[in-house]
Parts: sequence; C-alpha cells; structure tokens
Amino acid sequence: MNIRLSERMRKADFQTLFTAEILKAAADSNIISFAGGLPNPLSFPVKDIEMAAQAVLQRDGAKALQYSSAQGFPELREHISKRYKSKLNLDISADEIIITNGSQQALDIFSAVLLDPNDEIIVENPSYLAALQTFHLYKPIVLTVELMEDGMDTDALEALLETHNPKFVYVIPNFQNPTGLTYSIEKRKKVASLLKGRDIFVLEDNPYSELRFTGSQFPSLGTYLGEQCCLLGTFSKVVAPGMRIGWIACKNKELFQKLLDYKTTMDLHTNIFCQLVISEYLDQCDFDAHIEKTKELYKNKALKMMECLDKYLPDSVTYTKPEGGMFIWAKLPDGVKGVDVQELAMTKGVAVCAGDPFFEYERGVPALRINYSNSSDEAIEKGIKILGETIRELL
Amino acid sequence: MNIRLSERMRKADFQTLFTAEILKAAADSNIISFAGGLPNPLSFPVKDIEMAAQAVLQRDGAKALQYSSAQGFPELREHISKRYKSKLNLDISADEIIITNGSQQALDIFSAVLLDPNDEIIVENPSYLAALQTFHLYKPIVLTVELMEDGMDTDALEALLETHNPKFVYVIPNFQNPTGLTYSIEKRKKVASLLKGRDIFVLEDNPYSELRFTGSQFPSLGTYLGEQCCLLGTFSKVVAPGMRIGWIACKNKELFQKLLDYKTTMDLHTNIFCQLVISEYLDQCDFDAHIEKTKELYKNKALKMMECLDKYLPDSVTYTKPEGGMFIWAKLPDGVKGVDVQELAMTKGVAVCAGDPFFEYERGVPALRINYSNSSDEAIEKGIKILGETIRELL
Repeated sequence: MNIRLSERMRKADFQTLFTAEILKAAADSNIISFAGGLPNPLSFPVKDIEMAAQAVLQRDGAKALQYSSAQGFPELREHISKRYKSKLNLDISADEIIITNGSQQALDIFSAVLLDPNDEIIVENPSYLAALQTFHLYKPIVLTVELMEDGMDTDALEALLETHNPKFVYVIPNFQNPTGLTYSIEKRKKVASLLKGRDIFVLEDNPYSELRFTGSQFPSLGTYLGEQCCLLGTFSKVVAPGMRIGWIACKNKELFQKLLDYKTTMDLHTNIFCQLVISEYLDQCDFDAHIEKTKELYKNKALKMMECLDKYLPDSVTYTKPEGGMFIWAKLPDGVKGVDVQELAMTKGVAVCAGDPFFEYERGVPALRINYSNSSDEAIEKGIKILGETIRELL
Repeated sequence: MNIRLSERMRKADFQTLFTAEILKAAADSNIISFAGGLPNPLSFPVKDIEMAAQAVLQRDGAKALQYSSAQGFPELREHISKRYKSKLNLDISADEIIITNGSQQALDIFSAVLLDPNDEIIVENPSYLAALQTFHLYKPIVLTVELMEDGMDTDALEALLETHNPKFVYVIPNFQNPTGLTYSIEKRKKVASLLKGRDIFVLEDNPYSELRFTGSQFPSLGTYLGEQCCLLGTFSKVVAPGMRIGWIACKNKELFQKLLDYKTTMDLHTNIFCQLVISEYLDQCDFDAHIEKTKELYKNKALKMMECLDKYLPDSVTYTKPEGGMFIWAKLPDGVKGVDVQELAMTKGVAVCAGDPFFEYERGVPALRINYSNSSDEAIEKGIKILGETIRELL
C-alpha cells in the first residue's frame, strides 16, 4: 500500500532519535540517565493522591467519570488563579484558564490557533526541544535570539523586530529547559518594553518557577504585558506528570475563545478524574509544604551534581549554576561535540542529552543538557565520573 | 490588540451553537436532555474504579504518576488486543495500538498525519458531528455517501470512486452516531470489496459495538481490509468517558510510526494513571458482566423511548429502531426543520439535537437525533410528550 502522508508529516523532523534514546535510557535500569527531564518519584505525593482519589470517587464518582466541559474543572482553575495571585501577584481569573493535557498540548493549541505556514515566530536559542517540534508542525519561519546568562539578548531582539513581525515570542524565563538559566528583572522589563503594544503575543512557559531553591522569585512577563502575554503552567513538575494536567492562561478574550474551540475539537476535554483528584489534593493537603520538600530534594541533587562536575569534568568544561528547576547546561571545549559525548557515554552506560536538538539551526554543538532531579547521589557520583572520562577521551 | 489568527481558525466552523447548547442542556438539571451522547452514570463502575485506583497507587504509585511512553501502557494495550480477538476475531497486536485521549484525539491525529488542504475524504451522510469538525481543521474536500438502513449506499460509493481518489473513508458501521443504524454483513463486504487494494484507508470508528442489546455482532471492516483499515476504540461508553482513554489500532507499520510521532508531539502521552486504573479494573473485575448490565439498562431505555415515541409523536414521524448504542434518529415530516423543533422544544425545557450539524452540506434537515441512554424513565415519558406537542405545533 502506498501511504500518502500529509506534507506536515513528510517534512516534519521529529528528532525521534534523540527522544527515543532519552526514553530508552530512562526505562533501562542498567543505564544511569541524566538525559531526561523527569521529576524524582520521591517527590510524588502518592499517599495524598490515593486519599484524594478515594475522596473524589466516594463523593463525586459520577462527576469524576462522566464527560465534562472543555475548559476544565472550575475549582481546579480557581486554585490556579489564586496561586497566580499569591505567588506571582498576577490577576488571572479562573475564567481565563483552560486545562490541557500537560502544557505540551497547550503549546500545540496555541500554535494551531495562530500559525500559518511561513508565519514568523521568535524563540530563545537554545529552546525547549518539544516546543520546537510542535511549532515545526505548523511550518513557521523560526527566528532565534541568543539566550545569555541573564536572559534573551535584547539588542538582537530589538534588531529582529525592526525587520520582522512574528506572531509570537516563546520564552521560558525561569530555569529554562535546556540551560537552567533565568532572566534578570532588567531583561524581563526590557523584553516586555520591546514587545509592548505590538500585535505580537508572548508565550511564557513556566513549568519550573515553583522549584526555586535559591534566591527570590522574579515577576512574570505577564506583569508588564497583560493580555499580550499567555502563560503555560503545569502540575507535572510539582505534583505528578503522569496525570497530564497543565493549562494555558489567556486574558485576551478573542484568542481565548479560539483556544477553547480548538481544544474542544482536539479531544473534547482533559481527563476530569485527574482534574478532580488534583483539586481535592490542593484542597486537603499542604501543597506549599510539599513543594518545600521537593525543592530541598532538588537543591541537594543540584549541589551534588555541581560537586561532581567540579571533581570529574575537565576544567575546560563550564556549566550553568541553577537556582531552581532540573537542568544544568554544560559547555564543552570547542571541537568536542555534544552528540559525540552522548554517543560514547551511552556505550559506557551513561545517558546525557546533546545540545543539538534544542537548537533550531546549529548542529554539532559543544554542549550537553544534564538533568539532576531524578538520580540517586550514588548514580550522580558514578555517572559524572564516567562522563568526565568520556569527555577526556574526546579532547 | 489585533489578533492574527491562523487561516484554519479564521475559517473553521465549529458549530459551537450546537455543541454549547448540548453541553448547557446537559448541565442544567431543570432541562430534560435527549441532546447529548452521555453514558448513564448508573453504568459507571465507581466502586471498582475506586478499588483499582487504590491498588494501582499502593503497588505502582511512582509508575502511575511519572512520565510514560507515548504509545501507552503495554498491559492495557494487551487487554484491548485480546478483546479484538475474542469479540471480533480480529488479529491486532498490542504493538499495533496507540492509546489516545478518547477516540476524539485519534480522529485528529489520523487527520493530521494524512490530510493536506483539498485532499478528498469520504464520510457517511449524515456522520458524527465532532469527527466532521476535526476533519474541517485540515481543509479537505468532504465527499458524502448517503447512509441507508443497511449501511452506506454502495452504488454511490462505487460511482464516487470512479472519479475521486480520497485519502480515507470514515465509517461508523455499528449503531452509528447520529442515526443508530448498523451496516449489514453484505454492505460491509461490498464496501470492503470496493476499497480493497486501493491506496485509501478506511477509518472504522467503533465506540458502540459492545453495546449491542439485540441481534448478533457483525464483523469489522478490518476483517476484510487488514492493514488498509484503522480502527478507533474507546472505554468512554463501556467504562467511563471522564478518564479520556481511547485508542487507534493501525496494522500498517509506516502509518503507525507517523501516528505515534504525531501523538508524542501533541501531548507526550495520555495520562498514565487512568491507563493503569482501567487496566487494573480489567484485570480484577468482571468486565463482561459489567457490559451485560449496561446493555440491559440501555435496552430498557431504548424500549421505553420507542414506546413513548409511538405514543406521543405524530404518525408522520418515523424513526430508526436501534439494536444497540445510544441513539434514535427521527425523520420529521417534510417541511418541519429539526432546528425549529430543537429551538421550540428548548423553550419548553426539553433538549434534542437537530439533524443539521451531522450533515456536511444540507441545512434545515427534517430530522432529530434522540439520545436515550442518559434519562430516567420518567424524564423520557415527560420529555417525549412535550416533544410530540412541539412537533404538532410546527406541522
């Protein structure tokens, strides 16, 4: 049979090699994996979720199992709204939130609603692999702006905006995936002032900001941009990713209705059982205390990882010092390709993620993304020692 | 702010009036609703799901809450594979199944992977509203074939195939939504023989076949078409829709890989917690006995509905006699529009669904879709009496 695929599938580059290798490594207990972006299962509130599931089914069984509305469970949206106010001082009402299957689905919905082929978008360079893959489905022209230690290169952004008119700018201002970098307040204000008043949305992806274990929270770009800024959020990193409960917050009413129409057509609604369970969990349990414990866990993992990087990696390797989140970005000496390190390390039983798939255009990048959230201290010690040996072999 | 939507969203016809009215009616306890397609919550195995959720979290908490693979939980896919064999004598391995957020998401994934603008597809006339909406996002040319009492008009299909080369044919051969009609064996064989060997997929949507309460099961088109036929399935109608667990079965390896790539990009994976819960439920509970109870419930609802239609509707209204599923299709006398009946009945507190949104082209159709699964006997008696009065007012 001759398969007549759509153009989007004939041309799509899913970088499935990278993703498949990450998933394979994560599933193989013989491999020490720093390649994924998985939360540590020690952080999952399993007993509390069990209690919440039982309470929901005993009290609201029919509601938890029946079809529901596309926008999502009102009480859960209310929880999210209140947390935006208390944690980020943002006024986002429950009516301005749509629950999605993780924030990954929100990336797709947002893209589908805005992008035609050859529309322009701006992303950080590097940016989140799975976001780039989603954007590619809609065939935009992807413009990149270098990510510096304190956020986007705003001179480059300003120059781009003189000659381009992108539909949106995608940013991850807190503990970015893959670099772990965070925008300074000045950079946030500068990015916002450059975009303010234009017909350009900012899509702020913010899965990690609750996981700041050092220093203080910075404002969302939404603080400065109001309805021009849409926000992605998720319970994946602070409760549990397996439930696939994320959201998009959108204050622009016209865009909001289109996002909701599209979500409805995609899958009617996100599974309501898990929405009720998380809402019950937030009602009954001490979520802040849970996050404090998770942060303590990740802080110690990050410290252990940095200690081992200092100890085992050649001095010519530099790396970002995270204040939160899950990732460290290691810059390799020029001439050492991340993909080569990834390949050779894998033969020694250690998985890391090369920098390449996070870049829109560059290949053979001398960089690695190293995840520290989901390994034991022993695995970090052993794995980074092997990684150091691997890099030395390639010098 | 000037919102620059994508062309798909500027032109999309979401028929949101119909969908919004259906959802509003379902949520309003003062309205008797025959408009939706909701399972009866009496059929939900709430206690068993509670037991399964508890068992899963106690035994496999970390696994149930962690990220998972895009294809879905292997044991759940194994259950589905075995059931294809035992119920439909179909050889579909667990490896040929992808778990999706209800079969609605599978409709989207299948469309995205195959359709470019102006590609042709063939659908039954009328067909499932939400499938048409999904297809429209990809801007195909929608060719329609009349649905007769015993299935598609195969003469019309044959004629269409002489001059057209659609990418796929979408069929719902069992207790179709909206008509409740079922293809005869002869029609199944004829449709298959007309399509066999062409580069045209058949997408067989089959949410209701387990709910046959009279007569005997007919073979899937997959029996005759092998890898040319993809199958959609769901636990929504036989366990619980709120969990959003459906699937697509695809024996063609090339297409399968593309569907999986696309699913991964959409939302990484379907929520794994509910996958484990349903798999545990199928392991531990008597699923067949549960389905027997549900069929008995729906059979009695259908009988009650037909009794009331005979009693209260003008003789000039004819309707399909379902042998399973959830719907009856009522043909109104010429000149009486379903949309007018829908509107007037709503003012009297009764919601029904006009035929219009199920048709690709026709408007002002003299037909109604009547759902019987989710109303009490008293509501059926009272609501159909009002519906009869409404139709008489419009004669």
